[in-house]
Amino acid sequence: SNEKREQFMSYFPEIVQQLEERASTLDDIENGRHVREFLEYIIPGGTKYAGIVTVETYKMLLPKEQHTPENIKLGYYLGWCVEFLVEHVVLIDDLMDEGTIRRNKRCWYLLEKNHNGAPNDGCILESGMYYFLRKNLGHLKCFPQLVQYLCEAGYSCYYGQYIDKKYSNDPFNTSPKLYKTIVQNASTYIVSYVPVLLAMTLAGYTDIEKFNNAKSIMSQLGFYYLIENDYMDIFSDISLKKKDGRDAQTGRTRWPIVVFMERANQEQKLRMKEHYGKDTVEDVAEVKKLMEEIHIHDIYHDYMAGLYYKLMQDIEENSYGELKEVYLKLINTMTCSLDAGGVFP
Amino acid sequence: SNEKREQFMSYFPEIVQQLEERASTLDDIENGRHVREFLEYIIPGGTKYAGIVTVETYKMLLPKEQHTPENIKLGYYLGWCVEFLVEHVVLIDDLMDEGTIRRNKRCWYLLEKNHNGAPNDGCILESGMYYFLRKNLGHLKCFPQLVQYLCEAGYSCYYGQYIDKKYSNDPFNTSPKLYKTIVQNASTYIVSYVPVLLAMTLAGYTDIEKFNNAKSIMSQLGFYYLIENDYMDIFSDISLKKKDGRDAQTGRTRWPIVVFMERANQEQKLRMKEHYGKDTVEDVAEVKKLMEEIHIHDIYHDYMAGLYYKLMQDIEENSYGELKEVYLKLINTMTCSLDAGGVFP
Repeated sequence: SNEKREQFMSYFPEIVQQLEERASTLDDIENGRHVREFLEYIIPGGTKYAGIVTVETYKMLLPKEQHTPENIKLGYYLGWCVEFLVEHVVLIDDLMDEGTIRRNKRCWYLLEKNHNGAPNDGCILESGMYYFLRKNLGHLKCFPQLVQYLCEAGYSCYYGQYIDKKYSNDPFNTSPKLYKTIVQNASTYIVSYVPVLLAMTLAGYTDIEKFNNAKSIMSQLGFYYLIENDYMDIFSDISLKKKDGRDAQTGRTRWPIVVFMERANQEQKLRMKEHYGKDTVEDVAEVKKLMEEIHIHDIYHDYMAGLYYKLMQDIEENSYGELKEVYLKLINTMTCSLDAGGVFP
Repeated sequence: SNEKREQFMSYFPEIVQQLEERASTLDDIENGRHVREFLEYIIPGGTKYAGIVTVETYKMLLPKEQHTPENIKLGYYLGWCVEFLVEHVVLIDDLMDEGTIRRNKRCWYLLEKNHNGAPNDGCILESGMYYFLRKNLGHLKCFPQLVQYLCEAGYSCYYGQYIDKKYSNDPFNTSPKLYKTIVQNASTYIVSYVPVLLAMTLAGYTDIEKFNNAKSIMSQLGFYYLIENDYMDIFSDISLKKKDGRDAQTGRTRWPIVVFMERANQEQKLRMKEHYGKDTVEDVAEVKKLMEEIHIHDIYHDYMAGLYYKLMQDIEENSYGELKEVYLKLINTMTCSLDAGGVFP
């Protein structure tokens, strides 16, 4: 919600301040000004979904008597660490995909003054995050786990981005397996699972069984969300999806094209090739028409119902107590709100 | 030495294997093949100076009775972690500077198949390093310190690279202060200080006083080495410097141009502007002549003698026992050998 996002953003100036001070100890030329300029350019805007899920899950899991201002602050700080990692991935993603606009501004890597410097700035962002984490949460017993989970999230994400880059150039050469590998590594892991894992860890959970359980459930949830996102990009109108979905025009549809390639006949595939990824009203209409010929709406609803059923069954069978509540609340948040759109790179 | 480098390199295949296995748990499309291909392309060649200093210092500091094969292996592993961080910086440096050749091969980012993917590969390299560190050294008590020092080294390096990129475009707008800020952050910290700091930590040192002492001494040593490197690039012949020094031709001289701008008069500066950074025999000869007009050889020898004297005095006054031996041995290695050339980005 907007309120939660504003609360989350209210910590941003303080974090910039800390990172600027840190940089100024290295930099007697500009006293760290670059970090401020960079962060204030790239960070505002976006949903901050992963960061907010982290802190909100933490608040749900933390026993009420431990809701001190200090503890709550730690949750926000941790949420920001996740967010910084996501922002790093977004930065590199724009660079890899030759994006031009991000959050209504020109992409950072395209600014003349940053000429070729963006990958290095991304590294400043990521290593700055680890500095911030240690400075503010380094005294906690769970600190090594927090570092580990963030590192692993990064690795998984970068690897997924590589696979995505290499194999998604040709959407006609896709497969459900490829789709799953990409979204699990590059998206659902960092956006769904890691926030919950970190929140659990900070709230004092140490039971590894519960983590594994969370991983499966959160991956399913992330997958559910991502497919909805892909589908809505093409088939919902702008008032619902709240952004100018352009996947069909740019040839970046994921789930729908995977399904299409599984179901379509040769003639339909050839027609799709002709119209997909082209930026006219007629081409987009033809893409939609072709998707509808294979009955994509029915497939979508059946598939989602199946995922949802499996997910609820898993939660019912494998979780209990406050964690169960968290899962249900997250499902509610994720599946009922398209506000969260655009958190995935 | 070559023997030490070969010993160091002998661990490389095993490390690639571990990282490939790790990647294959995420990647059911190529089973982690990309990590192997990437590492085997970018890593071989180069001096591996920072990595070798790490393991050799560790061996010097580790009590003889603890020289078990397991412990020695840990030292090599740690050296490789430093080396991976350096390689990441090198990769980004090539990208920022639009380098074309690295270690007699086309730069990784220029290969057609990697189109825009190199920054992401750099992230795979760095987060893979942290995975490797945790997997192999995560059981050690000093592990959190190792992570911290590597993180800090990264941050310092990236920040120095930013300053270098922004302010080194115009060598006529340089200053001793700028030079020092850049080399301390981007070079001496990671190549001189961090290897010793990590080696001390792994060998069991916990005394923070000794670390601070090491920082000052190692920074001086790194600085000493870097200036020698800059100077030799222009003024020694190829048989001594063992590479085709091209700083004058490409306008990337550092220390000599800083000194020149301090000492030269207006007319000399104008002449330098005309000839500096140009790739003809005449231009290079004129650059050398101008440097000699301000008596650069005398300045160099005086300056280096001063640095050396201060360094030896610091070692004499502030260190003792095995650490003192390490410092002296490192000085010997660094100041007598140009083999190490090219370790600095």
